[in-house]
Amino acid sequence: MARIKRLERIVALTKELNDHPFQLFPFSYFCEKFAVAKSTLSEDVQTVRNGLSTYDLGIIETVAGASGGVRFIPYHSPEADNEFLWTLAKRLNDPARLLPGGMIYMNDLLFDPQISFRLGEIIMQRTLELQPDYIMTVEAKGISLALATARAFNIPMVMARKEARITEGPAVSISYVSGSSKKIQTMSLPRKALAPKSRVLVVDDFMRAGGTARGMQELAEEVGAEVVGTYLFIASREPEKKIVSEYASLMTLKGVDDETKAIDIVPEML
Amino acid sequence: MARIKRLERIVALTKELNDHPFQLFPFSYFCEKFAVAKSTLSEDVQTVRNGLSTYDLGIIETVAGASGGVRFIPYHSPEADNEFLWTLAKRLNDPARLLPGGMIYMNDLLFDPQISFRLGEIIMQRTLELQPDYIMTVEAKGISLALATARAFNIPMVMARKEARITEGPAVSISYVSGSSKKIQTMSLPRKALAPKSRVLVVDDFMRAGGTARGMQELAEEVGAEVVGTYLFIASREPEKKIVSEYASLMTLKGVDDETKAIDIVPEML
Repeated sequence: MARIKRLERIVALTKELNDHPFQLFPFSYFCEKFAVAKSTLSEDVQTVRNGLSTYDLGIIETVAGASGGVRFIPYHSPEADNEFLWTLAKRLNDPARLLPGGMIYMNDLLFDPQISFRLGEIIMQRTLELQPDYIMTVEAKGISLALATARAFNIPMVMARKEARITEGPAVSISYVSGSSKKIQTMSLPRKALAPKSRVLVVDDFMRAGGTARGMQELAEEVGAEVVGTYLFIASREPEKKIVSEYASLMTLKGVDDETKAIDIVPEML
Repeated sequence: MARIKRLERIVALTKELNDHPFQLFPFSYFCEKFAVAKSTLSEDVQTVRNGLSTYDLGIIETVAGASGGVRFIPYHSPEADNEFLWTLAKRLNDPARLLPGGMIYMNDLLFDPQISFRLGEIIMQRTLELQPDYIMTVEAKGISLALATARAFNIPMVMARKEARITEGPAVSISYVSGSSKKIQTMSLPRKALAPKSRVLVVDDFMRAGGTARGMQELAEEVGAEVVGTYLFIASREPEKKIVSEYASLMTLKGVDDETKAIDIVPEML
C-alpha cells in the first residue's frame, strides 16, 4: 500500500513540476501536499530527476537552503533538437509553400501547438543565459512562438501593436522604417506592459532587414526596459547587413528560386 | 534495481502523456520505448491514472483493441476551476484596470502563460462534446487564449486577419458590421487554413454584440467549414440580444460604473 502511494506521489510530482517550468517550489509545498517528510520528498525528487534525464525529457534542479526548493527546466538533447529542426526545415522547403514575392506560407506550422511549443523550448534553451523577464513580440504571426517561449521560461509575454488601441490604455508609440519595404510605420506598446529596468527577449517569426526588431528595441527603451536579445524563427540571409546587430534564429532562409520554386531553409544547429 | 527502473518509467510515461493531450499512443509505442511487456505497461498506465486522479491533475483514458492505446485528457474538478475563475475575476475587477469607454485592461492576464493555459484547459473541458478540429480566432488579443485551447485539445489554431496579407497566400474575405460600433469592417482567412467540412470552435477574448464572432462564422462557411461553437473569455451582458445565438463565456461583464470605477465581472461557474 505504501508503495502504491509513493508511485502516485511521483506521478503528481512529475506533472506539477512539468506544468510550471522554472517555478521554484519550496520543499515544504510538496511535503505538505503529500504529507511526507523532507527526506522522503528528496528521494522522490531524485526519482523524477532520474526518470526525466534517462529519457531526455528535461532537468530537475534543486536549490539548497531556506529559500531553496525544486524546479523543472525543459530540456532536450542538442541531437534531438537538431533532428526536430531538420524535419521542420524539410516541411518548410516544400515548393507548395512558396507565395508571390518570395514569401513562404508557414502559419500551419507556427500555429500547431506541438510544433510551436517545442520551438519555444528550443529558443528558451538557447537564450537561457540572457535571463529575460519578458518575451516581446509584435502582432500577429509571431505570437504563438513568443507565447510558447514565454511558457517555457514561465514569464509574461507582451505584444506591440501596429496601432495603439483604446482597450490597452496609455501607450508609447514609435515610428520606424521597415528595412525591406522602406516604408515608415508605427508601433505601440501599452505603458504598463513592461516594468522599468526589465530584461526583454524579442521573439518573432521572420526577419529580413531587421527594421521591426529594431522598432521593438526602441519601444522597450521608451518605457525604460532593455532588449537583451532578439530571436527569430527564420532569418533571411539577405541582406547580410541587418539593422539590429544582436540576433539569432532557429532557421536561415538562404534563398528562394522563383523559377524552380525551390526554397532553401536550413536549421541553425547546436 | 528493477524497482528504480519502474519509477523512472512512470516519470517518463507521465511526462510524455501530459505533453501530448488527446494524442492516442498505441501501447506498442511505450512497450518498445521502455522495453516492457504489455501487461507491465498496463500496470504503469494504471499507476499514472491513479496518481493524476488522486491529486485532481487529469484523466487517463485507455482505448481497447488493435487501434487502441492510451491518452491523457487535461481535467480539473469543477470546484478547482470555479476557484481559479473567482480569483481571476477579483483581479479583473480592480478599478485600476478601467480605461476610457468602459474598456478593461487585461493583456497582462491573457498573456501570462500560467493563466492562459489554465483558461484554455477550462474551455476545452466545457466544449469537449463539440469535438472541434480547429480553434479559430481573429488577431490579436484572443490569440493566447485560442492557442492555449488548441494546445489543450491538441489541434491546430487558425487566425483570421483584419486584412489579407501577401504572406499567407490566396485568402477569402468577408465584410461584416461590428455590432457595437456599427462600422463596416473586413476580415480574411487564408484559403488553405481550414480543411473542408471541418468543425471549428471560435475562441476570442471579448464579445459585446457579437459582430466579430458572426464574421468568423461566415468566414468559416466561405471555405466550407462549420463553426460548432463560440467561446469567449468575457462576454458583456449588454446588449442582451447578440448577433450570434450559440455562445458561452468564462466570465460575464455585468456592468461598469464610470463614476465609481467599479467593474462587475463574474465567472460562469459549473
